[in-house]
Amino acid sequence: MKRMLLSVEYEGTAYAGWQRQINGLAVQQVLEEALSSACAHPVTVTGSSRTDAGVHARMQMVHFDTSATIPPDKYPFVLNNLLPPDIRVQAGRQVPADFHARFLTSGKTYTYRMLNNRHGSALLRATHWHVPVPLDVTAMREALAFLPGTHDFAAFQAAGGSARTTVRTVESAVLLAEWPVLTLIVSGNAFLYNMVRIIAGTLAEVGLGKRDPDAFRKAFASLNRLDLGMTAPPEGLELTEVRYPEKAFTDPGAIRWHQEK
Amino acid sequence: MKRMLLSVEYEGTAYAGWQRQINGLAVQQVLEEALSSACAHPVTVTGSSRTDAGVHARMQMVHFDTSATIPPDKYPFVLNNLLPPDIRVQAGRQVPADFHARFLTSGKTYTYRMLNNRHGSALLRATHWHVPVPLDVTAMREALAFLPGTHDFAAFQAAGGSARTTVRTVESAVLLAEWPVLTLIVSGNAFLYNMVRIIAGTLAEVGLGKRDPDAFRKAFASLNRLDLGMTAPPEGLELTEVRYPEKAFTDPGAIRWHQEK
Repeated sequence: MKRMLLSVEYEGTAYAGWQRQINGLAVQQVLEEALSSACAHPVTVTGSSRTDAGVHARMQMVHFDTSATIPPDKYPFVLNNLLPPDIRVQAGRQVPADFHARFLTSGKTYTYRMLNNRHGSALLRATHWHVPVPLDVTAMREALAFLPGTHDFAAFQAAGGSARTTVRTVESAVLLAEWPVLTLIVSGNAFLYNMVRIIAGTLAEVGLGKRDPDAFRKAFASLNRLDLGMTAPPEGLELTEVRYPEKAFTDPGAIRWHQEK
Repeated sequence: MKRMLLSVEYEGTAYAGWQRQINGLAVQQVLEEALSSACAHPVTVTGSSRTDAGVHARMQMVHFDTSATIPPDKYPFVLNNLLPPDIRVQAGRQVPADFHARFLTSGKTYTYRMLNNRHGSALLRATHWHVPVPLDVTAMREALAFLPGTHDFAAFQAAGGSARTTVRTVESAVLLAEWPVLTLIVSGNAFLYNMVRIIAGTLAEVGLGKRDPDAFRKAFASLNRLDLGMTAPPEGLELTEVRYPEKAFTDPGAIRWHQEK
């Protein structure tokens, strides 16, 4: 068996999220069915992130094991012929046998897009959260400046989060304004469940004047979910990039050094 | 009766084009049904451009006559509640009784988007033409430089075009490169049937090295469709802006001065 790593893009609109489940069609299931057909044996995959229903991915990283002899860089061609057009495989490579798409990540970038106009958009509806009331971008950026750094993000997770520790490092957080589109780009070492959607929802409430620009600072101190705003809807969110340390690709002792660090 | 003008945005993917027809659902039909319901009398609409099946519009301008007492700026709110999410009305205003959305245009801008990567995109598939072989942007820009100006564009139309004259003025034509997306933006006084898609298809063939960068110059001289490239597919095309002379909105003699000019 060889372990392969794929970079997968999808529009999440039609799916019940990444993870295979009983109700609704998951991206994972569609990908496993295509891979099982291509490899001629049952394949199960592991993704770097369990994106929710309606959330998109430009780069979801996925590993699986196979005895098939397909050259790694041919997987995009083979799979894209079998997959629906809202799922595209962009790259494939072989990785060490104990590479792990989720456990070994060193960082991720998420993008959250808002459309701040009166009547929404036919063309952007699948990928942007429509906020019909004018947002104060200056106040939103003032709030966002509190986010980078290593903090206890306990307040920034949905009920049902199962992380052992809630300390995370946000490496950067920027809000681009290309009127009427606002684009939030957040990079960090790891993220809690719904963390980016809670950040986006809180930012919007700051932009509407419903919440003070020190909301994030307050929530780091209180650890109280109630000091933050709503969870923004899924359609605005995209998993944009997943990063691994270089030695994850070269060192066959990946799991060992991961546990030691 | 009062004449109203609407600015309408749509994603064309699900429609058989703008114009009402026997086979397939047209944007015009969906809009007329919503308007007839909102106005409580049968409404027919006239659009500025007959976009083809799969073509999008950020700003399709549409006029209609009504006896309803809905304030013009309320039409977006009323109609967007009745329309599917891939059609959005962005603005409404009252215009003189002989305003005409098609005959009085003074200019239009079209955008054609290409995605120049190997494996396409799940997220951009509805609005970008996927060109999987690398394009030479320098050669494409060299070709594009021949386009602006007043020329006989007889070679630049699909069979079935019904224009009385084929002389048109292209005011500007630019190709933005934001790798892997290439965006062609063409403004002109008026366009022939399939003109922008023929320009985009020819440009792509220049970018692939299949056609010389003087293709447009050659076609202005020969007036021969065979001197140009393929008609690029509809999904990359968007009607981006429609312009009218200011007096079309203020002078009730609009049709008269249009015929005199």
